[in-house]
Amino acid sequence: MSVIDFRIRPPYKGFLDAVMYSQPERRDRFTRQLGLVPSRAATEKSCELLLKEMDEAGIDVGVVVGRSPGFLGSVPNETVMEFVKAYPGRFHAIASIELGDRRRATKEIDDAMAAGFKAINFEPGAQVVPLAIDDRKLYPLYAHCEDRNIPMMILAGGNAGPDLATTTPIALDRVLADFPQLKIVAAHGGWPWVHQVLHIAFRHPNLYLSPDMYLVEMPGMADYLKAADGFLAERFIYASSFPLCPVKGYFDWFEKLPIRPENRERILWKNAHEFLGLSA
Amino acid sequence: MSVIDFRIRPPYKGFLDAVMYSQPERRDRFTRQLGLVPSRAATEKSCELLLKEMDEAGIDVGVVVGRSPGFLGSVPNETVMEFVKAYPGRFHAIASIELGDRRRATKEIDDAMAAGFKAINFEPGAQVVPLAIDDRKLYPLYAHCEDRNIPMMILAGGNAGPDLATTTPIALDRVLADFPQLKIVAAHGGWPWVHQVLHIAFRHPNLYLSPDMYLVEMPGMADYLKAADGFLAERFIYASSFPLCPVKGYFDWFEKLPIRPENRERILWKNAHEFLGLSA
Amino acid sequence: MSVIDFRIRPPYKGFLDAVMYSQPERRDRFTRQLGLVPSRAATEKSCELLLKEMDEAGIDVGVVVGRSPGFLGSVPNETVMEFVKAYPGRFHAIASIELGDRRRATKEIDDAMAAGFKAINFEPGAQVVPLAIDDRKLYPLYAHCEDRNIPMMILAGGNAGPDLATTTPIALDRVLADFPQLKIVAAHGGWPWVHQVLHIAFRHPNLYLSPDMYLVEMPGMADYLKAADGFLAERFIYASSFPLCPVKGYFDWFEKLPIRPENRERILWKNAHEFLGLSA
Repeated sequence: MSVIDFRIRPPYKGFLDAVMYSQPERRDRFTRQLGLVPSRAATEKSCELLLKEMDEAGIDVGVVVGRSPGFLGSVPNETVMEFVKAYPGRFHAIASIELGDRRRATKEIDDAMAAGFKAINFEPGAQVVPLAIDDRKLYPLYAHCEDRNIPMMILAGGNAGPDLATTTPIALDRVLADFPQLKIVAAHGGWPWVHQVLHIAFRHPNLYLSPDMYLVEMPGMADYLKAADGFLAERFIYASSFPLCPVKGYFDWFEKLPIRPENRERILWKNAHEFLGLSA
Repeated sequence: MSVIDFRIRPPYKGFLDAVMYSQPERRDRFTRQLGLVPSRAATEKSCELLLKEMDEAGIDVGVVVGRSPGFLGSVPNETVMEFVKAYPGRFHAIASIELGDRRRATKEIDDAMAAGFKAINFEPGAQVVPLAIDDRKLYPLYAHCEDRNIPMMILAGGNAGPDLATTTPIALDRVLADFPQLKIVAAHGGWPWVHQVLHIAFRHPNLYLSPDMYLVEMPGMADYLKAADGFLAERFIYASSFPLCPVKGYFDWFEKLPIRPENRERILWKNAHEFLGLSA
Repeated sequence: MSVIDFRIRPPYKGFLDAVMYSQPERRDRFTRQLGLVPSRAATEKSCELLLKEMDEAGIDVGVVVGRSPGFLGSVPNETVMEFVKAYPGRFHAIASIELGDRRRATKEIDDAMAAGFKAINFEPGAQVVPLAIDDRKLYPLYAHCEDRNIPMMILAGGNAGPDLATTTPIALDRVLADFPQLKIVAAHGGWPWVHQVLHIAFRHPNLYLSPDMYLVEMPGMADYLKAADGFLAERFIYASSFPLCPVKGYFDWFEKLPIRPENRERILWKNAHEFLGLSA
């Protein structure tokens, strides 16, 4: 069985300037709070070790996503694509868009899709000037993506903005209702609004959840798992959030979860594959 | 032991125009997401099969509630009462009130209670123009019901409005505090605000919860059950939400839950009986 | 091993006028809803019985906190300190500040710390005119405490104000972010916003949680416990909330919880000890 890890940020060029690499103590404290051991690929900032770790864990494909400028740092899309091209067949790229100027953002989206990115990432709460997920400035961009069948990732949950208001699931609920053909995966899975985001996923078939690092023994895990092995089996997506979690340590932990084989296959591979519109 | 199913919408006349019958694929997808099998009474739109299913499940009495006009459809109170009268002793009726015009709504409430309805149902978020549960326009109506000792059902939870804001438990909290003698049962049980609505129920003895279809293996179920078999045993009310859930399939599922016999009896019968002010 | 009970309100003078003693039926109903038996020290209003109960439970030290005027009653700081001084070595005092007038509150804080109080308590939602936890009027006071390294208790959760909006964790999140050196313990533990407040605690190392009475078989307990025995082990604080819970009955209940010995010691004693800056 193939495995896709839907959130990997390699220790490569521009990534090294983002908070996840420039503040290793903060990151490793985080990893340990989850009960995991920091990856040597992260602490030694080695792409080779990352690839080795993926091999050992049986991760065939990683999805790499950058970061538009904001309090979490900034990783240019060029860096992401350069890295992805350096390891043919091992990675897919998602482009992060700087929000604010509608025309520039639209062009960035079109350029990225033309350049081979598989999806578009918004991080509204993490912008220099934080935006709500349902800020009206974003509506032309959502419409643009919906009309072109472009799948989207939205940073919704966890440390996605200055405070918990940024991850309020009500804003996500509205966007899903207003753009019913727009497929959205919530990176960080809407955590910690666990009950609420699962309700939204229950109502809106265009929402996919990927709680990634916030799945690991975090509050609400039991309900995430029940949904993953139940009504959400076709829209739950596996991701380690490397370097926040080790690629292999996360996989070893995930392997022990009581999820039925057919759903496990969907979560580990098929859902991500279909979401990104990859050929079989 | 008697059993009252507190939320049954029969496949009868006006009900057939509501979304729950006019969009069977949507309904059956919903039922299956809960892990249940759609009822033949629902798919074949047969009142006879519904009665037969109730008999097989041992449901003595069903509570039938209509729907004021809105995005979920519309079921006139006349239809509800006509159905209830067609099966003496098997059903009780709750009247749904169209909100917006205070004087008309007040008259509707009084007419309904005079006509034999046992309680009044508000669906603020599902109106043509959605209202919050604590919208000031509703306050004269709450006062009217409180002063006349009329028990109320409020659609609070699940698909109760255009987005999750409609089911925010804060609004319900305020109404309960402002009308402390008004007995309210929250249909859909305030789901998915599980922790929050249980907190409100803990504080306000005038709140009853009936999570109905959103109890079935949904996020938060463990906490609902703990409350149902604990501090909320006298205010938890059993309901299948037929046709969203099958009457018998829901009952069979419920029967397996670890609830102590004395609380089970309260939840399946006594709480509903007392709430509606029925004679013993 | 020593044990500190971080929330005890003795049946002493001014305490007897607060709701917790002046409305015994309400309090005892509450206690029984939690599955506990009301303490004789509470029902007989006996400080001697309270001390005896502490001895029997093995509680070495109690933390006594008063109440600034509001809907929950009022207990002057003088009463608190008088009681604490009457039983040398058995109690520590936390001072409650009347909010609203900035200059008076600042003076109250300074006077209290000079008089031997170990921390400052705010109950914004319970004031005569309720305030949000992040009300701008409170910001000079938070700054004052942060600059002087004064630990704070904030009533955040449970019956902390007129409705659930008072305990919204977003306000707490903002204060923690804006005053990163200010150590805050959330009395009532942010309940019922369990997932949300645990998220905040995960992000902000300056937040301590003490769910006290709302831990006992309440919705969300499983997630509180997982955090207490996991990432939050160094910031979870034991408290009975006497007289709402019996000192010994609560301890007996707590003793059965599956928490590892090293974390148990932290929760029962060390965390409180360090939080209050007591010498070892």
